[in-house]
Amino acid sequence: MKLEKIAKQFRIDRPTKFRLADYDPAECYGLSMDKAEAKTMLAEGVARLSELQEKLYANNKWSVLLVFQAMDAAGKDGVIKHVMSGVNPQGVQVHSFKAPSEEELDHDFLWRIGKALPERGRIGIFNRSHYEEVLTVRVHQEYLARQRLPAAVAAKKIWLRRFDDIRAFERHLARNGTLVLKFFLNVSREEQRKRFLARIDEPGKRWKFSMGDVAERALWPKYMAAYEELIRETSREEAPWHVVPADNKWFTRLVVAGAVAKAMEGLDLAYPKVEGAALKELLAAKKALEANR
Amino acid sequence: MKLEKIAKQFRIDRPTKFRLADYDPAECYGLSMDKAEAKTMLAEGVARLSELQEKLYANNKWSVLLVFQAMDAAGKDGVIKHVMSGVNPQGVQVHSFKAPSEEELDHDFLWRIGKALPERGRIGIFNRSHYEEVLTVRVHQEYLARQRLPAAVAAKKIWLRRFDDIRAFERHLARNGTLVLKFFLNVSREEQRKRFLARIDEPGKRWKFSMGDVAERALWPKYMAAYEELIRETSREEAPWHVVPADNKWFTRLVVAGAVAKAMEGLDLAYPKVEGAALKELLAAKKALEANR
Repeated sequence: MKLEKIAKQFRIDRPTKFRLADYDPAECYGLSMDKAEAKTMLAEGVARLSELQEKLYANNKWSVLLVFQAMDAAGKDGVIKHVMSGVNPQGVQVHSFKAPSEEELDHDFLWRIGKALPERGRIGIFNRSHYEEVLTVRVHQEYLARQRLPAAVAAKKIWLRRFDDIRAFERHLARNGTLVLKFFLNVSREEQRKRFLARIDEPGKRWKFSMGDVAERALWPKYMAAYEELIRETSREEAPWHVVPADNKWFTRLVVAGAVAKAMEGLDLAYPKVEGAALKELLAAKKALEANR
Repeated sequence: MKLEKIAKQFRIDRPTKFRLADYDPAECYGLSMDKAEAKTMLAEGVARLSELQEKLYANNKWSVLLVFQAMDAAGKDGVIKHVMSGVNPQGVQVHSFKAPSEEELDHDFLWRIGKALPERGRIGIFNRSHYEEVLTVRVHQEYLARQRLPAAVAAKKIWLRRFDDIRAFERHLARNGTLVLKFFLNVSREEQRKRFLARIDEPGKRWKFSMGDVAERALWPKYMAAYEELIRETSREEAPWHVVPADNKWFTRLVVAGAVAKAMEGLDLAYPKVEGAALKELLAAKKALEANR
């Protein structure tokens, strides 16, 4: 009950009014709990998700797509690990999008996204996504040049057109039975600094750090402006964004678990019924088995 | 320690001597434990796997491929769920092979297998696999006709050639850094009968049952002969089969967890070291961050 009530606070239902400044990365919804309490609450959320995934798989009509976007060190990997470990991996597909390959650049920007979509009955998780196309590519316009777009296409309006194409793509997915939920893990610049320093100081975590990470920090305001606009432009009822406070990892995880559980509980995930001719067949099978065949 | 010792008993290291009749589906290695004990032991195995997966991911050189084959109701889905839940789903990719599509039939039988292989740093799990090509397709030779092979190819020797091709394929994977482990979950015909009846009696599980499942039981001896031969022909050091007793689910899961943990511990999964120029860069980044940039 509580989890989804918390999660709802961070769903962007009125995108035109959205201002990133209204969302505090350090917010905890007035909750203060120790690690053990947070762990117990998260475990309950994970158990619910685990059950919901089983129903989703059996039902085999809906699919679920969870999109995670964030600045570095905001905790994407940790959320995926802590919210989704414990769910049957047979029903979960995680896809990490890296810099596009030459083959991918030779196609439209949704081409590689489409190939990674979850099948019916599965939960697909995108660690980064098509939103990089209106984030990193927008902040680093030299990346756009690499996409070899015809001049008429790479016009000033390109970002508005990309928003439009993304909205249409996600609407299409929703209309075909995909529940789309998007999460921006909203970490503060200062918290990112602390986490980077912690990575550098811990030899076992150093490999996660790259020099480029510091350079990107200089572009922080540009990234935030890009996030604000894309959330305004693409948070829609059929594919809402959640702006999740990410300065406290335990809280981030609770919000994500709550949001996913709530949305999946809204689907009609009945186990398939065996009726009519199929039931007759089933009873014939039972007889055969009882006769030891 | 104990887990891998148990698992080793069921690895087929001398395939030419392999006789399926020597392997008792009900064997428990002299262990008798209650559910709670088995659960604790499995949890320890899963925790080890979870750590190993993190190292595999960070190391990003090796990949792991786990192949599961079995008669229906032997517990493939359960093993995947119980051994792999708790491992970070970002590092695990499960692929279930169904009847091939028309497009897949228009290619050689390893084509669709290759597309589903795990990337470096990941654990790939095949729920059924290319071995269906020397199992179901062999037992039901009408399926072979659907593959539209030229007559010269679909000769009598086709099964021996397929074994040869599979050996070469798996050797190639091993030589390129994939740890290949294969598991035949060895359930008895009588235990399968009981599990089918239990599925039919439990409305929530009925959907898992199909009429074809009973018909297949009549072909049990043919399937067992096919399993025996394929294990003889394809259990090799670089891609060994384990013949796992599957009449007791708790024992099956322990053997699989032990075998995977043992094999992964044999890889050199060091965390990547940051040295030389990279270390210098890292320290420069540290300075920049400390100066609050």
